[in-house]
Amino acid sequence: MVSKLSDTERSTHLPKLEQQGWKLVQGRDALTKTYTFSDFNAAWGFMSRIALKADKVDHHPEWFNVYNRVEITWSTHECQGLSERDLGMVAFCEEIAPQKN
Amino acid sequence: MVSKLSDTERSTHLPKLEQQGWKLVQGRDALTKTYTFSDFNAAWGFMSRIALKADKVDHHPEWFNVYNRVEITWSTHECQGLSERDLGMVAFCEEIAPQKN
Repeated sequence: MVSKLSDTERSTHLPKLEQQGWKLVQGRDALTKTYTFSDFNAAWGFMSRIALKADKVDHHPEWFNVYNRVEITWSTHECQGLSERDLGMVAFCEEIAPQKN
Repeated sequence: MVSKLSDTERSTHLPKLEQQGWKLVQGRDALTKTYTFSDFNAAWGFMSRIALKADKVDHHPEWFNVYNRVEITWSTHECQGLSERDLGMVAFCEEIAPQKN
């Protein structure tokens, strides 16, 4: 069973994530960020690493890609909002994305 | 130089593509279709084959994925509309997608 982040967890984590460019989606309890890469090859490499991780931990993104741009959104279906699973995947995105993002 | 499909090419190809579930995007000269797979693994397999092909022929999709669903849109930036490149990638999508789609 996955539960939504508590108010304390939110105030601990969200400000830092906002500094990293993550935004709360309007009207939903979800976090989104747009990454831009040098080209499609680089964008696809990023997506591929996330795809492998996501399927391994059974927590999948919503994402849109066109050429070098990836808009990725995390939220947890089971609890209809942000959970620690999203924080884990957000951290992974930040870990593997090029520093310029 | 890539040119937009002629009226003759459109009347030759578009009706068949519409029968296959492709739709013209409202307000744009682009074709879109939503494919549904058994799970993320299957959806990602489909996307991966398209990614390799797209980068090889340097013609990339706009696409959205969440779990087992892939919404894919084709249009040609250079001519601001549908070209034979899109027809080629649409045909490839149909070729590799499971028959149920």
